[in-house]
Amino acid sequence: MSVNTEISESFRLIQDEICLALEQCDGGAVFVEDLWERPGGGGGRTRVFRNGNVIEKGGVNFSAVYGECSDALKQQMHTQAANFFATGVSIVLHPNNPHVPIIHMNIRHFALSDGTSWYGGGIDLTPHYIDRSQASWFHSQLESVCDRFSPDYYPKFKSWADDYFYLPHRNETRGVGGIFFDDLGREEQSSESYKDFVLEIGRSFAPIYTHLMNLNRDRSFSTQEKMWQQLRRGRYVEFNLVHDRGTRFGLLTNGRTESILMSLPATASWEYDFTPEEGSREQETIDLLVKGVSWVG
Amino acid sequence: MSVNTEISESFRLIQDEICLALEQCDGGAVFVEDLWERPGGGGGRTRVFRNGNVIEKGGVNFSAVYGECSDALKQQMHTQAANFFATGVSIVLHPNNPHVPIIHMNIRHFALSDGTSWYGGGIDLTPHYIDRSQASWFHSQLESVCDRFSPDYYPKFKSWADDYFYLPHRNETRGVGGIFFDDLGREEQSSESYKDFVLEIGRSFAPIYTHLMNLNRDRSFSTQEKMWQQLRRGRYVEFNLVHDRGTRFGLLTNGRTESILMSLPATASWEYDFTPEEGSREQETIDLLVKGVSWVG
Repeated sequence: MSVNTEISESFRLIQDEICLALEQCDGGAVFVEDLWERPGGGGGRTRVFRNGNVIEKGGVNFSAVYGECSDALKQQMHTQAANFFATGVSIVLHPNNPHVPIIHMNIRHFALSDGTSWYGGGIDLTPHYIDRSQASWFHSQLESVCDRFSPDYYPKFKSWADDYFYLPHRNETRGVGGIFFDDLGREEQSSESYKDFVLEIGRSFAPIYTHLMNLNRDRSFSTQEKMWQQLRRGRYVEFNLVHDRGTRFGLLTNGRTESILMSLPATASWEYDFTPEEGSREQETIDLLVKGVSWVG
Repeated sequence: MSVNTEISESFRLIQDEICLALEQCDGGAVFVEDLWERPGGGGGRTRVFRNGNVIEKGGVNFSAVYGECSDALKQQMHTQAANFFATGVSIVLHPNNPHVPIIHMNIRHFALSDGTSWYGGGIDLTPHYIDRSQASWFHSQLESVCDRFSPDYYPKFKSWADDYFYLPHRNETRGVGGIFFDDLGREEQSSESYKDFVLEIGRSFAPIYTHLMNLNRDRSFSTQEKMWQQLRRGRYVEFNLVHDRGTRFGLLTNGRTESILMSLPATASWEYDFTPEEGSREQETIDLLVKGVSWVG
C-alpha cells in the first residue's frame, strides 16, 4: 500500500512549529527528543518537556508507522484489510501552576490497504479550576476554526468531545471539553478534502495554548490549590488508563510505552472520598464538569 | 437463590481481626468506616486508613452483594444464570516508608442461581526495594498455609500470581508475587471444601504483614528512595487501572468507585523513560520483577 509521506511531512512540520512556540513561550526548558523505530515498520519522534517555567511535564509526539494489521487492530478498526499506515501528532501538557489548564491535542491520519483512509483528532482543555470566560474563549477559538470549513463541525465535534472525554465511574467530564472527531472521509471516495481542516486544527494549537499560558502563568497559588491540582491530575490518570481508547490500544498492542504514557503527570494524588466545601471554587469546578454546557453563543 | 450468610459473616469477622491487628501495629491511626448499600441488593463496610505511623493510605474492605446478573457480569463470569451472590474482603496498604512493602489481599466467594459457587483470592507483595530474604520469608509463609491443605496449591497458585500480577506494557511483574487463585470448586458439586483454605488465607494476612511492617518501619530513607517509591507507586496505578480485572470490572459496571479505588496510593509519580543506574538497588529490584523466580526451597 502507499505510504502518504505528504501528510506525515505536514504533521512533522506542525510538531516543529508547536515545539518552537512552546519553548519560546515557556522560556525555561527545551524538549528532549527521542527518535525511535517500530520493528514492524516506521517510527516516531517523541519530544518531552520537563520542569519548564510553566510546563512541568508534557510531550509533543509525532509518529508515522505502517505494516501488517494485527488482529487487535482489525478489531479496533472494524476492518479485514491486510496493511495499514498511520501518522499523527499527540500532545499532553501538564503545567506547574494550578491556574494554568492541562491541554490535549491529537491529529491523525489512517489509511488501509483496502483503499479507505480517514482523519481524526481534536483539542480539549482540562482546567484544575474552571474559569468560565477562559473556557468560553477556548471554545470560541475552536468554533472559529471549525466554521471556516463547515458550520456543522463545531456543534457536532463539541458534542462528540463531551461524550468521549467522560469518566462514567466519576460521573464527570474530564474538563471543559473542546472538539473530538474521527473517521472523517472514511465512507467517502477520498479523505483528501478533510486534510486542510485537520492541519488547521494542528496549527491553531500553539496560539490557543500559549495565550492561556500567558494569561495564567503569573497567578499566585496556595498549598490547597496545589493539592486540588494533584487530585484533578489523579482523575486525568484515571481517564487515560481506564477509558482513553488510544492509550489502551497502544498499551495492549505492544506500542511504545514511554511515548504513550508521556500523557501522565509528573505527580498525582488520590484521597478517599474527597468532597470540596459547598460554595468553594473546587465545588464550582465539579459542578461544571458535565456534558452539554454551551460555552459559546 | 440462597444468600450464604455464614461465609459473609466469617469474612466480616476477618475484616475485624485484620483492622484491629493493623491499628495496634501501626499505633498512629484508626480506620474510618463507611457503610454503604448497593441499590440492587446488599452492601459493604469500607474501612480506610490514612496517615498512620506506618501506613500512609490503605483500605480493608468488606462487601456482600446480590441481585440480578447484568449482561456485563454474565460475560465476565461466563454464565447465563439469572442471579448472583458475592462476598469478599479486599485489602491494599501503601506504607509511608519506602522500605515497607505495599501489600494486597483478596478473598472472595461467588454463587450463582444455577447452583454453582466458587472461591477466589490471594495475597501478593510489592516491595519498592526487593529484599530477597524478606521475599523468601513471605513466600514460605504462604507455602506453609497452602501445604496444610494440599501440596499442589502453592506451586500452582504462585505461578498463577506471576501470570496475573504482570504488566505486559512494562514487561515487569507488579512485585514479588505471592499466590492467586480463582474458580475453586466451580466445576464440583460444592465449593464447601475450599472454604477453610480461603478463611485460613484471610487469617494469615495480619501476622504476615505486621511482621514485615515491624521489620522495616524504623529504617531510615533518603529523598532518592522516596522518589523511587513514587515511581513504583505509578506502576501500581498502571496495573490496577489498565489490567486488574476486579478494578476494571467494578469501574465499568457502576460499582462503588471510592471503595474500588481505595487501592490507589496517596501520591504517585511518572517520569519519562526513567532508567536506574547500573548496579543500583533500584536496578536490582527491576531485575527481580520477572516471572518464575523460585523464592522458596
